[in-house]
Order: sequence, then C-alpha cells, then structure tokens
Amino acid sequence: MTEKNSKPNITASLSPSLLQLYDVSSSIVVIIDVLRATSTIAAALYNGAKSIIPVDSVADCIKLGKQMDVITAGERDGQIAEGLKYGNTPFQYTPKFIKGKTLVLTTTNGTKLLHMALTEGAKGIITASFCNISAVCDYLVREKKNVILACAGWKDRLNIEDTLLAGAIINRVKDHFYQNCDSCQISESLYMLAKDDLFNFMKEKNASHYHRLMGFDLEEDIRYCLTEDNANILCLYDGGRLIAG
Amino acid sequence: MTEKNSKPNITASLSPSLLQLYDVSSSIVVIIDVLRATSTIAAALYNGAKSIIPVDSVADCIKLGKQMDVITAGERDGQIAEGLKYGNTPFQYTPKFIKGKTLVLTTTNGTKLLHMALTEGAKGIITASFCNISAVCDYLVREKKNVILACAGWKDRLNIEDTLLAGAIINRVKDHFYQNCDSCQISESLYMLAKDDLFNFMKEKNASHYHRLMGFDLEEDIRYCLTEDNANILCLYDGGRLIAG
Repeated sequence: MTEKNSKPNITASLSPSLLQLYDVSSSIVVIIDVLRATSTIAAALYNGAKSIIPVDSVADCIKLGKQMDVITAGERDGQIAEGLKYGNTPFQYTPKFIKGKTLVLTTTNGTKLLHMALTEGAKGIITASFCNISAVCDYLVREKKNVILACAGWKDRLNIEDTLLAGAIINRVKDHFYQNCDSCQISESLYMLAKDDLFNFMKEKNASHYHRLMGFDLEEDIRYCLTEDNANILCLYDGGRLIAG
Repeated sequence: MTEKNSKPNITASLSPSLLQLYDVSSSIVVIIDVLRATSTIAAALYNGAKSIIPVDSVADCIKLGKQMDVITAGERDGQIAEGLKYGNTPFQYTPKFIKGKTLVLTTTNGTKLLHMALTEGAKGIITASFCNISAVCDYLVREKKNVILACAGWKDRLNIEDTLLAGAIINRVKDHFYQNCDSCQISESLYMLAKDDLFNFMKEKNASHYHRLMGFDLEEDIRYCLTEDNANILCLYDGGRLIAG
C-alpha cells in the first residue's frame, strides 16, 4: 500500500453491478470492454474517425442514423444487431472506411457501462483496451486524479479479458496511485499469470467470451484485441462523443 | 470445459451484488465469509454447538437473546457489535463455552448474504470456510446438484480471502461439475498462486481485510481462518438454523 495522502486513489470495479460502490463523481472512469467495444473504438479513432457517439440501445442507434450523416454499428450477443449495417469488429474500421466519419455505436455491455458512469456523474470518462493501453496509462499518470477501472464484463458477470486489462493497467501505473482494493490485487495477479501469452491464457482458461467469439469464427478479432498498442490513441469522452485525445 | 449435460453446474458469485445473476433457486448456495463468519460457524458447530441462528441485524440478535436461552454474538466492521456480548472470533467458541448451546450470530457480510440466498429461494444452503473445506467438498460431490459459490466480500466489494476459498473449492471438485464461468477461473487461478502459503499471500497483497484485522491485533484469527480442516464439519442450514450435517 502506498501513502494515502500524497497520491490519487485507484480502484477496480470488475462488473457494472459494482460500479455504484465506488466514488464515481470524484474519479476518472476508465471503461474497459476488451472484446470488443473499447478495442473497436480505439481502432476507429486511431484510423481517423472524427468521433464516435456511444448509444445504449439499437433503437437510438438507428434513429441517429436517420437524422445524421453517420455510420451506424453495433452488436448484441457478439453479432451484428438487427437493423444495423456494421458490427463490432475492429477490422471493419480501416482508414479508408472511417477517416473523417462519425460512428454511432451500440454494444451489449460497453456502451451501457459508459452511460452508467455518465449518469453517476463521473469527473471524466475514457475508454481503454489493450490496443491503446500506453495512451491510457500515460493519461492517468499525467492527470493525477482518482481512477476507477470499470470493467464491462458480460451481462454483469465478470470476465477474464476485462479483468486482465484492469490488471495490466494497475501493473503499469501503480507507483503513481494509492491502492487499497482487493479487486486491483486480484486483477494484477491474474495479469501477471497471463501476460506472456494473453491469447493462450484465454484459450487455456476457456474464457466464456473467447469461446463465444471463436464460435463465430472471430479468432483474428480476439488476437487483435489482445495486442498492446496496435491502435495507441487516447479515447476521451467529451460532450456526448468519444474523440481522439 | 466439461460436458454440459452429464454434470451439474458450478458457478462463483464473487460479491453479494452479483448473486441475483445466478439461478439460485435451482442450486445449493455455499456461503463464503472466510474472515470470519463462516470460520466461526464451523468452529462453533465443530466444538458442539447445538445450532447457530444467523440473523441479519444486531437488533434481531438482541431481541432473540431476550426471548430464548442463547448466546448472542456478532460484529460490525470487524469488532463486537454494540449491545452484544461476544464477537466473531473462532477462539471464543471452545467446547467448554459452546457445547450444547445455541448461538445467535450476526456479522457484517456473511449473515446478510445467507438471508439473500434464502429470499431468492436457494435449493439448499451450507456455509464454507477453509476450516471445513473437506466436509464442504465431499457434500457438494455427493449431492450432485448445481452449486453457486457465494462470496460475502466486504460491503459488496470483492475480497481476496473469499475469492481464494471459492478457488480452492473449485480446484477440489471441478472434475464433478460442468463449468462455464470466468469468475471460477479467476478464483482458481488466484488460489493456485496463493495455495502454498495463504497467510503470506494475504500479507504480500495487503488484502484489505487482512489489514483491517491486523489493526485489531487479530493475526491468530486470520491464521486460524486460513487453515484447512481444523474444524472439519458440514454446516447445513435447515429450518432457520445452521446445524452440523
């Protein structure tokens, strides 16, 4: 444990159901949805998307698509949602496809969690993935504010990949924060076990979401989403949109 | 993952806030509150207590104490609750003190969780600690029913010690159950890291509850609660009371 008074606090909320236990209004909330929302967000902004509007229902996504010149995309249960044209695979959002465009995105877990953080009055919101982990860590260290690592999980259950990313972030930034949080310790311990080969760890542990996406033939998506810094850009929520920070 | 159809299901709920996500009414719920409620329960029943009535408020505990010939005990935030004579240390419940007696017990997290499981219509309820881990695992294997390992945590946050016990139970019984639960995998991974020296792991990770109890000079309590099978008895909830099974 580091000295309490000289450093900001870091905690991890491993499921959206737990977010309310933490002091959201005094913290930067880091939204984590590794497979695949926050990885796709990083890829789209890295490849030049003007902004991303996260919405929490498919209906709102379709509605915005009719009102504005945007790309509408989203998934439910790992597949493209009915009524939407594009899904939640980072490979969709190439520079050619997304540069200068606005994306309206809804996902099963990640976008809902972002709206929870907003409703609870978060001081700041960013999204994090392995794809942009360095940008995220640099930002958190620079800002010197309290941090809540908020995992989206799967329908309010914990999942391995989001816990791993929370652990990876803690492992990188812990010297700059005060930490008195068992969930942080659990996450970092898990990450230390897995870090040499995240994909293989997911496979060995038969992570539920690994299994689900492999069933849709999405191995390349999983590998992309577990690669550090392949879309290393800060994804900052500001005025209803995620923008490159 | 084992074959789905031939074996009962095992899952882990790492916080009381998550219990509602699981199918409580078709499962045996295993209440886990290592420091110290479920360890104290095991010690008291092992040492001959007639039964233990778990109640979720200090007021109810005091009220029952006036109506019946019982020992009232409980803690809030790690210390003896105001108005109650005895606390939550397993060392209190020696054979001389507890044999043939009924104990009415209320604790910060564990007894509340037990009442949640009851309200949700659990098919069966037992309490588990490292102190009675073998009796718990033998029972679960023998019963061949779905199991939810329900961790009490600390005020709805995860804690390391309850997660470790969930992992230890999974590690012992997993061949007998179907498992598709990331929380189980996270728990078992943590346990495998810690198992050679649970006390030292808690110390190294500066587990929040380790820190809290050490502040009350309760190292011996912690060591007792992390010892396998030192009060190896099945603690079965039946008709409002916990009894030796």
